[in-house]
Amino acid sequence: MPKPELLENFPNPYADRDYEIVIETNEFTSLCPLGGIESDATDLDLLKGGAPDFATIRLTYVPDVNCVELKSLKLYFWSFRNDGIFYERAVNRILDDLVAKVNPRRMTVVGDFNVRGGLKSVITASWPPPARG
Amino acid sequence: MPKPELLENFPNPYADRDYEIVIETNEFTSLCPLGGIESDATDLDLLKGGAPDFATIRLTYVPDVNCVELKSLKLYFWSFRNDGIFYERAVNRILDDLVAKVNPRRMTVVGDFNVRGGLKSVITASWPPPARG
Amino acid sequence: MPKPELLENFPNPYADRDYEIVIETNEFTSLCPLGGIESDATDLDLLKGGAPDFATIRLTYVPDVNCVELKSLKLYFWSFRNDGIFYERAVNRILDDLVAKVNPRRMTVVGDFNVRGGLKSVITASWPPPARG
Amino acid sequence: MPKPELLENFPNPYADRDYEIVIETNEFTSLCPLGGIESDATDLDLLKGGAPDFATIRLTYVPDVNCVELKSLKLYFWSFRNDGIFYERAVNRILDDLVAKVNPRRMTVVGDFNVRGGLKSVITASWPPPARG
Amino acid sequence: MPKPELLENFPNPYADRDYEIVIETNEFTSLCPLGGIESDATDLDLLKGGAPDFATIRLTYVPDVNCVELKSLKLYFWSFRNDGIFYERAVNRILDDLVAKVNPRRMTVVGDFNVRGGLKSVITASWPPPARG
Amino acid sequence: MPKPELLENFPNPYADRDYEIVIETNEFTSLCPLGGIESDATDLDLLKGGAPDFATIRLTYVPDVNCVELKSLKLYFWSFRNDGIFYERAVNRILDDLVAKVNPRRMTVVGDFNVRGGLKSVITASWPPPARG
Amino acid sequence: MPKPELLENFPNPYADRDYEIVIETNEFTSLCPLGGIESDATDLDLLKGGAPDFATIRLTYVPDVNCVELKSLKLYFWSFRNDGIFYERAVNRILDDLVAKVNPRRMTVVGDFNVRGGLKSVITASWPPPARG
Amino acid sequence: MPKPELLENFPNPYADRDYEIVIETNEFTSLCPLGGIESDATDLDLLKGGAPDFATIRLTYVPDVNCVELKSLKLYFWSFRNDGIFYERAVNRILDDLVAKVNPRRMTVVGDFNVRGGLKSVITASWPPPARG
Amino acid sequence: MPKPELLENFPNPYADRDYEIVIETNEFTSLCPLGGIESDATDLDLLKGGAPDFATIRLTYVPDVNCVELKSLKLYFWSFRNDGIFYERAVNRILDDLVAKVNPRRMTVVGDFNVRGGLKSVITASWPPPARG
Amino acid sequence: MPKPELLENFPNPYADRDYEIVIETNEFTSLCPLGGIESDATDLDLLKGGAPDFATIRLTYVPDVNCVELKSLKLYFWSFRNDGIFYERAVNRILDDLVAKVNPRRMTVVGDFNVRGGLKSVITASWPPPARG
Repeated sequence: MPKPELLENFPNPYADRDYEIVIETNEFTSLCPLGGIESDATDLDLLKGGAPDFATIRLTYVPDVNCVELKSLKLYFWSFRNDGIFYERAVNRILDDLVAKVNPRRMTVVGDFNVRGGLKSVITASWPPPARG
Repeated sequence: MPKPELLENFPNPYADRDYEIVIETNEFTSLCPLGGIESDATDLDLLKGGAPDFATIRLTYVPDVNCVELKSLKLYFWSFRNDGIFYERAVNRILDDLVAKVNPRRMTVVGDFNVRGGLKSVITASWPPPARG
Repeated sequence: MPKPELLENFPNPYADRDYEIVIETNEFTSLCPLGGIESDATDLDLLKGGAPDFATIRLTYVPDVNCVELKSLKLYFWSFRNDGIFYERAVNRILDDLVAKVNPRRMTVVGDFNVRGGLKSVITASWPPPARG
Repeated sequence: MPKPELLENFPNPYADRDYEIVIETNEFTSLCPLGGIESDATDLDLLKGGAPDFATIRLTYVPDVNCVELKSLKLYFWSFRNDGIFYERAVNRILDDLVAKVNPRRMTVVGDFNVRGGLKSVITASWPPPARG
Repeated sequence: MPKPELLENFPNPYADRDYEIVIETNEFTSLCPLGGIESDATDLDLLKGGAPDFATIRLTYVPDVNCVELKSLKLYFWSFRNDGIFYERAVNRILDDLVAKVNPRRMTVVGDFNVRGGLKSVITASWPPPARG
Repeated sequence: MPKPELLENFPNPYADRDYEIVIETNEFTSLCPLGGIESDATDLDLLKGGAPDFATIRLTYVPDVNCVELKSLKLYFWSFRNDGIFYERAVNRILDDLVAKVNPRRMTVVGDFNVRGGLKSVITASWPPPARG
Repeated sequence: MPKPELLENFPNPYADRDYEIVIETNEFTSLCPLGGIESDATDLDLLKGGAPDFATIRLTYVPDVNCVELKSLKLYFWSFRNDGIFYERAVNRILDDLVAKVNPRRMTVVGDFNVRGGLKSVITASWPPPARG
Repeated sequence: MPKPELLENFPNPYADRDYEIVIETNEFTSLCPLGGIESDATDLDLLKGGAPDFATIRLTYVPDVNCVELKSLKLYFWSFRNDGIFYERAVNRILDDLVAKVNPRRMTVVGDFNVRGGLKSVITASWPPPARG
Repeated sequence: MPKPELLENFPNPYADRDYEIVIETNEFTSLCPLGGIESDATDLDLLKGGAPDFATIRLTYVPDVNCVELKSLKLYFWSFRNDGIFYERAVNRILDDLVAKVNPRRMTVVGDFNVRGGLKSVITASWPPPARG
Repeated sequence: MPKPELLENFPNPYADRDYEIVIETNEFTSLCPLGGIESDATDLDLLKGGAPDFATIRLTYVPDVNCVELKSLKLYFWSFRNDGIFYERAVNRILDDLVAKVNPRRMTVVGDFNVRGGLKSVITASWPPPARG
């Protein structure tokens, strides 16, 4: 289960200036939900049904008072490892957890998921959301 | 024959936010129309005339109430396999079928077709269509 | 000699919508003009003077009532094969011939020519021409 | 069903010399066998079970008296389109059909299949088979 | 814990011929051993210590009587997901498990592991092992 | 310790015109801070704790009266070699030092840091900072 | 019609040493034979039937007494421009013409032809031909 | 010494339309100035001090009445070969010389210089210069 | 100064089989020797003279009784950071230190150094050295 | 004129072992010979005739007692800058000059020259020359 309580901040050393931080990992993995229900995989039998998903996650933000601490972010990403979750929920959940903890001036999360059934998916969510034009 | 009745939705888990979903397949194949008439290829003789086309299809949309379910989308793409259809019609047809079913906030379909006669074609259609400027 | 009379149209199947068609060939070849005079190469002696040029041509347009038929476009490109013509004239001529025949909502032609004398040239012309800003 | 009777030869114009011909297509498609039984897909219901496979096929051979005619080879590859067949069988079958028809001095067939379930497969078969060392 | 009992074979359809099969996945993941002891990760606390490893695994073999069934191979690879294991042991273990089950004429396993501490590792093991020269 | 006193200018030869200069090095290295305290690494023991970081630094600016002299810039970058400093501070510090010395019309510094713990970071800071929109 | 009489040599300046020369052009073009008969294209009507072919030609040789002069080689390649010729014949013909003129210690010609009907062809011929093993 | 008197024009064949011409060479070379003084290198001793610089130059312009003639442009670029000149001056000088001769509607010159001391430089100058915003 | 005493082994888990381990880092840095004398850089003044070198180091070996422990190898590579050493000596030194500690069946070290003065260097040393043929 | 007297050696620090050194530059430039006569370009008029050539030179050798000093090698390469010389002669000349000075156990020189007239040339010479097989 995603554990946002793992996230930690450190004080932004240049908070008087808007500048951009991009953090990317190609080691994000979670499980496909089994029967559409989010849950932890606690044994191999469940894993058979809830097949692993793999993604590259790219986080872009302008820090305000806080920056997200890299090691804590890594642990937070690891907490999805045995969790059954849809692509759309995973990306939006990461955005919500990070916005709640880091309180940035703006943030975008991109999840670029491996091919499944010949289809590749890329999900992009931003806070604040883009204006409807 | 394209079968839009194969398409299925699931509820958008973050409908209060505009976010973008990109789905891409490099396994789209249909047939070149024989004598300009759309039809199903029911035997090899027809296939000889209606040569196979191959394309990468890239779908980009902002979901509203619904997201398109990936497995149903795959089956829908498969339903073009033995269908004789022009490039321009295929791309616009996919856009219309998906807009009708998914009812997104906006959607773009790109079809990037393999070289034929030394010419490569890329067709891009959007809903709502771009403003004429 | 370029033969625009080879170009043929077919009716745009989705004329109520602005959508974009890109057609690209990396098999365009013409001749360098001999003494600056456009002409057909009718034997090898002329070819010695009017050296072959090679280019990738990329055509982007939004169709109105008509789409250009791919096979006829291929034949039209072939008609430059033994013709002596400058880069700048070739690209603008292709634009003019296609606009006259297809009558699109907008069109851009890019000619990306192979290195000659260590110099690579790319020519881009559009209709309607870009506003002078 | 693969139709080797579509294959045609033309006389090797330089049969006194060993030289190599490589022919490659990235447009090979067949179906996954349904319940392990090879068969033609005659309607969409079958296609649902027998999912499409996509591959790049690369054929390398030294011709003897005959060369394989390109257009007939294309039609032969098309005859796999609605056929349910395993990867291993497809590659070895292509090798056997071509060796029987073309009677080359040597031939290798490589099938490079798209990712399925996160696994990519490449099958390589040669005639005469490599010596066991 | 790696579960070789998940592996299944199917009969090699062309067993009279030596031909090569390559299977590659870029979705292999296991855990770094905690204190050098192989074990399953049963909760997040363990995961904190036994950090995830990611690798591309490439398997090359010449089948004898059997071919490894792809879906069973995928499940076998998944069984490493929550297992603490060294790179060297993982690659050699995969080789041993597959040789024991599939009994191939020859087989090579390559594990290409993601960068850790600025160091990238690639391990290659073969059966029968290469002659010492 | 970063030594901005190493930076030297030369007079901009075309100061009457806004033009852009990009300078990039893939040879920037500093140390990870030990216990969060910036300091010089004076022996190997410190280095064990304060692990080396590696980055590509890309500087883009429009010169006013001065251009930064390349050799002095190289020496300035070298002065970070044994300095313990956070990514965010390094990029913003480089921007501040260069703005103070060169007094450009505008300047952007991008630091693209190597993967650590599976996470890659890219920091971008500009002067004057972008308008908040 | 290919004109080997255009080829010229210059004396090998280091004939006492075996060294290798590779010459490659991506600007080779000829015509597809019309009805299988080699001939020159003298007007557009013929060109319609005998469609243009495009190839990269790579020539590798060890010179003996002579080296081929580059400008004459270029003119020789141009003499295929309006000639109807099969791939296999073109590559072997180039080899024969060059071996006859340059009399090298060894020579290989590779013709890498553009995709036609979804099939790409690469022809390789050598003099002396490889030993049959 | 740069010789703008080598530049020649030809009449723009489509002067009634704004269209863009890009010309790029990766064969630009000049010398590093010796002691900051621009001069010609007349012997090897000078060359030892004034080390060679190498760059890719990319010229983009919209022609008005004239187009720059390619061969004359090549000769003009060659005239920098033994000239000691700074990067910033070279790019702006090329822009000034070409604007003075060709009198375009707009023009941009980019000089992308090889790495020196681990630093790569790219200089971009335009006429008319960009508005200060 | 290189500190081979930092290197540590762990027991090869599959010592009965010859298998290959490749370890690569693109984060190797040392200093250019000052006046040809190997020494540690203890302050910035020395660094000015002994400019930093950067390399990718690739180590390939077949372990016997021992494998090199990755973290200790990383620390060993770090010990070159402030050391003045020639390319040729660095690569051979790394080979000697590792052979002495790990006692492998065979080992190769490749150092691929960044461009200096327009020249790129790659040094390859093996133990046992290749037979002179 | 090539000046082999610029070349300098330093003692091979590991002469008891055969190891390989590769040095590559993409900044080699010379002139095309004017009328086939080798000579120095002393003014621009000559340069007009003797057009510049550009090449990547790659030198591979196993040192014996000596290694070639990098800075002296750079100066030696610069001495070709205003020299009119054929490709074949340049590569063999570099090989002869370096073998005479460095006296290596073996050496190969590759010259990879930029496209001229649509033809790219790569020349490879070795000492001792390869056995005629």
